[in-house]
Amino acid sequence: MSNLIITISREFGSGGRLAGEKLAKELGIQFYDKEIIRITAEKSGLSPEFIEDNEERVNNNFLFSVATAAYPDFNYVPQYDVPINEKTFIAQANVIKELAGQGSCVIVGRCADYVLRDHENVLNVFIKASMEERIKRITRLYDLDPMKAEETIRKADKQRATYYNYYATGTWGDVSNYHLCLDTGVLGVDGVVELIRRAVELRQDKAEEDGIQW
Amino acid sequence: MSNLIITISREFGSGGRLAGEKLAKELGIQFYDKEIIRITAEKSGLSPEFIEDNEERVNNNFLFSVATAAYPDFNYVPQYDVPINEKTFIAQANVIKELAGQGSCVIVGRCADYVLRDHENVLNVFIKASMEERIKRITRLYDLDPMKAEETIRKADKQRATYYNYYATGTWGDVSNYHLCLDTGVLGVDGVVELIRRAVELRQDKAEEDGIQW
Repeated sequence: MSNLIITISREFGSGGRLAGEKLAKELGIQFYDKEIIRITAEKSGLSPEFIEDNEERVNNNFLFSVATAAYPDFNYVPQYDVPINEKTFIAQANVIKELAGQGSCVIVGRCADYVLRDHENVLNVFIKASMEERIKRITRLYDLDPMKAEETIRKADKQRATYYNYYATGTWGDVSNYHLCLDTGVLGVDGVVELIRRAVELRQDKAEEDGIQW
Repeated sequence: MSNLIITISREFGSGGRLAGEKLAKELGIQFYDKEIIRITAEKSGLSPEFIEDNEERVNNNFLFSVATAAYPDFNYVPQYDVPINEKTFIAQANVIKELAGQGSCVIVGRCADYVLRDHENVLNVFIKASMEERIKRITRLYDLDPMKAEETIRKADKQRATYYNYYATGTWGDVSNYHLCLDTGVLGVDGVVELIRRAVELRQDKAEEDGIQW
């Protein structure tokens, strides 16, 4: 059976990262978030600081767009010089594919659902919460006033959406990309973890019924 | 406590209606789908056949758009003559609000999540499946060839999206409108019902923790 990969896309401030971490721990499988930066740095020669500054962001420079239009598929690593953001994406995508080959895991963000679209055994999850709930969570965690918290949330979500919509074929936050979307504001982080765990089991039962071999 | 209302938006062919029906039965609460047409007919004087032909559809006629621009809020029932599609929507919205006041229930489609946006105790669910899975389901149920099935699915989804995007403020199929999105192709219809039932319980626990009174 192929390794089970659970990809988690998350709205900023929803607690999606925390849910992913708890989920991986409960399932006894690897959890990858910032760790991907370190591995990508090791493999690519780019500095971890540079990757952190550039990952999940799009360079909107016009010349960049023109240059990258030539190699939309990251499976093809161009030999000529490419903009550094694109290099970061390609390097990260290769790391994600390698990790998915090594064992079952939870991967947060970084278009992992798109990067792993040909991997057979993937469950794609989107974790969200209302703006009101996210402001509550962010103000509590980071000691921000509500207005600043909302600005931070909107900016982070916009960056994630732009990044996803640029590199992947779908639209960030469109249900068609995910098997499961869950609201932590209504279900709680632990509730979300429980539902994903049960979804993993139900998915397994359904696959057996349908005669699917992973 | 306010009545619990579970609204179900569903992609055509996903089995979302069936999931809603099973859910209502298991929870021992009312289920409303086509029944809303009969009640709307009784209350509005419009014929059931007319309502069925016009509900969940938008009249794209330009004059219609101009006329309806004057009363975007369906809470205001205009005294002057209004296009009949808009009358149907207003009449249905009023029926939905009345039903929500009568007891806990499951309501399928008809922008119920938007119509009941001020009702305190609502869980909004979106039920979906991949095109491949829906084609499989539709060809099995309606004896259609796969190409015709896909055409039917795309047309029905387009109508639902256009209707929702016209009358509601959000976008059909955008995760921000729903607390829960579930894929029947991966989880099975019974699996989806089970997860919604558990979500109802988790939501209740979370509300108690947060001190929310419905």
